[in-house]
Amino acid sequence: MTISSQEARAFSRTQGARFVEELFAFLRIPSLSGDPAYAPDVRRAAEWLAEHMQGLGLAQVQVMETAGHPVVYGEWLGAGPDKPTVLVYGHYDVVPAEMSDGWQTPPFEPVERAGRIYARGATDDKGQLFIHVKALEAYLKTSGAAPINVKFLIEGEEEVSSPNLRPFIEAHLDLLKADVCVISDSSMRTIDEPAITHSLRGMTYLEIEVSGPTDDLHSGFWGGATHNPALALIEILGKLYHPDNTIAVPGFYDDVVSLTDEERAMIAKTDLSEAQFKQSTGVPAVWGDRTYTIRERVSARPTLDINGLWSGWSGPGPKTIIPAKASAKLSSRLVANQNPHKIYEQIKTYIESITPPTVKVSVKLLTTGEPALIDFNLPAMQAAARAYEKGWGATPVFTRGGGSIPVVADFVTLMEIPVVMMGYGLDDDGLHAPNESYSIEMFQRGIETAIVYLEELAAL
Amino acid sequence: MTISSQEARAFSRTQGARFVEELFAFLRIPSLSGDPAYAPDVRRAAEWLAEHMQGLGLAQVQVMETAGHPVVYGEWLGAGPDKPTVLVYGHYDVVPAEMSDGWQTPPFEPVERAGRIYARGATDDKGQLFIHVKALEAYLKTSGAAPINVKFLIEGEEEVSSPNLRPFIEAHLDLLKADVCVISDSSMRTIDEPAITHSLRGMTYLEIEVSGPTDDLHSGFWGGATHNPALALIEILGKLYHPDNTIAVPGFYDDVVSLTDEERAMIAKTDLSEAQFKQSTGVPAVWGDRTYTIRERVSARPTLDINGLWSGWSGPGPKTIIPAKASAKLSSRLVANQNPHKIYEQIKTYIESITPPTVKVSVKLLTTGEPALIDFNLPAMQAAARAYEKGWGATPVFTRGGGSIPVVADFVTLMEIPVVMMGYGLDDDGLHAPNESYSIEMFQRGIETAIVYLEELAAL
Repeated sequence: MTISSQEARAFSRTQGARFVEELFAFLRIPSLSGDPAYAPDVRRAAEWLAEHMQGLGLAQVQVMETAGHPVVYGEWLGAGPDKPTVLVYGHYDVVPAEMSDGWQTPPFEPVERAGRIYARGATDDKGQLFIHVKALEAYLKTSGAAPINVKFLIEGEEEVSSPNLRPFIEAHLDLLKADVCVISDSSMRTIDEPAITHSLRGMTYLEIEVSGPTDDLHSGFWGGATHNPALALIEILGKLYHPDNTIAVPGFYDDVVSLTDEERAMIAKTDLSEAQFKQSTGVPAVWGDRTYTIRERVSARPTLDINGLWSGWSGPGPKTIIPAKASAKLSSRLVANQNPHKIYEQIKTYIESITPPTVKVSVKLLTTGEPALIDFNLPAMQAAARAYEKGWGATPVFTRGGGSIPVVADFVTLMEIPVVMMGYGLDDDGLHAPNESYSIEMFQRGIETAIVYLEELAAL
Repeated sequence: MTISSQEARAFSRTQGARFVEELFAFLRIPSLSGDPAYAPDVRRAAEWLAEHMQGLGLAQVQVMETAGHPVVYGEWLGAGPDKPTVLVYGHYDVVPAEMSDGWQTPPFEPVERAGRIYARGATDDKGQLFIHVKALEAYLKTSGAAPINVKFLIEGEEEVSSPNLRPFIEAHLDLLKADVCVISDSSMRTIDEPAITHSLRGMTYLEIEVSGPTDDLHSGFWGGATHNPALALIEILGKLYHPDNTIAVPGFYDDVVSLTDEERAMIAKTDLSEAQFKQSTGVPAVWGDRTYTIRERVSARPTLDINGLWSGWSGPGPKTIIPAKASAKLSSRLVANQNPHKIYEQIKTYIESITPPTVKVSVKLLTTGEPALIDFNLPAMQAAARAYEKGWGATPVFTRGGGSIPVVADFVTLMEIPVVMMGYGLDDDGLHAPNESYSIEMFQRGIETAIVYLEELAAL
């Protein structure tokens, strides 16, 4: 049996249009993991993917239950026990999307425009995980076999910080056993600058509610002697930051591992200019802690962002009330070695300490995720670099990702295997935003790189 | 023709249950003036009221067009040109109400519980304006005539600050001509402490929008170098106040007429204790400018309140975005002699001056209303005091109202007549809040006092 990556690559090129059509079917399922109302759709997406894997000839394909949304598992172990096994991790769930957020076309009716696929989940992560499915298909449909064994672990709760994945891994260590884990759920700056992510930020996500009067009050009758909960909330939130834009929560930076000169030099390879940042985001000016470069701020430094704010009347026209309550969603992106639970306690304690007696406050933890930092000198990491050179056609840089894939830390600690993050997205794909999109060229080159990577891993 | 207030009062007592039933029909119409979607209901309320007046034998009953919602006019001039004419002003529009705000029963399905009517508009102002309609009915159905002439001007835009009423009055000065204007759209502390309001606060209502990135951004990719618009908004709002809870907008207090010792002594007659304030509102502690008493703060001092706040994600679960925009509704209650437009310009200029270059800001005026201050030694005011003594059974106090009835200033300046504010509500009726209610006993005593007031005006 001759296994040819060249034939697999050629096959993938001829099948590109069909692959995109299949991806469209996957994207049409609104698998929003954060909203209980969409639970049936989340399950439908899992079932769609399992059926698709089954059709390709994978074994042990299962939609496996967790305490939350299910995990999709499937494997092809035809390379035999002498060959290494790669575990592909991805997620089939997505974040919310509504036309009113500013979508040009409905987020769950994928369309192709100018070489890009527009849909929620196009790049994060349905499109990127599908690359690995199609890479395996290309081997199986041409050579009848792949160079190494492949297992898939595709979860449905990544966008809610994977609350049930760690217990799932712990309970299925034998089933999942592998030599390396590969994840495509990150991005590069431009199509000619592929990147292997070796660091991710963790997260602490919390909600705060300030309450005052029992009900909304008439602002004429009670205004002037009532501490408006919306005002109290903004006063509290304002105290979370110093004037230099650093975070004022006592102890917040205590555990942060300082960047070495060498690390700062590596980060500088992918630095973002102020002009590029403004171009990509549309902001009028760059902000942040000026003692760090822009790239450092968005990848190697912790943050505290307001993700949502609501109180009182936001409908049309005026309504002269003092709202009874005011709330905010807040999340902190964390870096090694910050502990998400410790950070939560610090924020909560600080908020409680600065809340005046004129209102009540409640702080609630929503989710957490550990930060991760992987050594890029590991053989599986270097094999990935070679795969990009041959499959993508460019030498990758090792970068730090600003986002969070909480499970990465779990794979490293529970399975004791390296995690190689080969992100096939672009920084400006607009994930989590309206008009999320994915380049069809990136999709194709991703499939070819994934094909070569299996060959490179076989050669280790 | 003998005109007897005693007979009219006796009649009103026997008809109480019917009057309440009629009021229920009026309250069932969701006449929300602030939301364009309810415009047909607003008109329906106007038509209901006009038809009701017609049925009582009023003349010239008309639903009169304005640039916004219509005005209901009706008159009974049977007392003849030698007798004075009173103009009754009220409003048939209401503020929004939804079950999800915390209503125990649907806001537009009035119910009676323990002697109170629960419905949006029960006290503000359908119930209170109806008192005058029923007082006139009582005279007409018993004596066949009232002691003086009565005109009704009932508008449908009070809750959006009456943008079209001033031009309406200007265009109909002859039709509306009267010797005194009476308004029941305010309240007393307890049923045994009737109050005649001689001062009202004005208003400047504005909306502020802070924008940064073109679309919502992924907080992992861009967090740390993007000035989160929600953070920028709270920083801006925070700077509107001094640490002592006074308003930091430059020039804000410049035109405020200082309270004299005599005025402070009068306000002290109705002072609110911290315990009473907490009891009425449910707040854990009283707030505000500690150089003024609680009653002064809520009636004789200007305020700046946040009425609404919205940005980013407020649905269930976490969503890790940096919102593209953040908005707030803000309103300032003004006192004599503050000018609402000048205050708007001061706030707008200040907000623009403190907005950092990392975001954009837009400030928009929604509505304004002039403050008013009426001399309580005028004969029509003293007649009202006697009406309470005879009709209500208690001597009223002259108080300052914290709310705003913008048209009061217009009546005073355009028609050159005194405006007598005989509020038949209670401070804790919960107007503008969930579970707004109105005491049936207040309704009945209001009708009897209104009956006596017509007699007292005739005797002047």
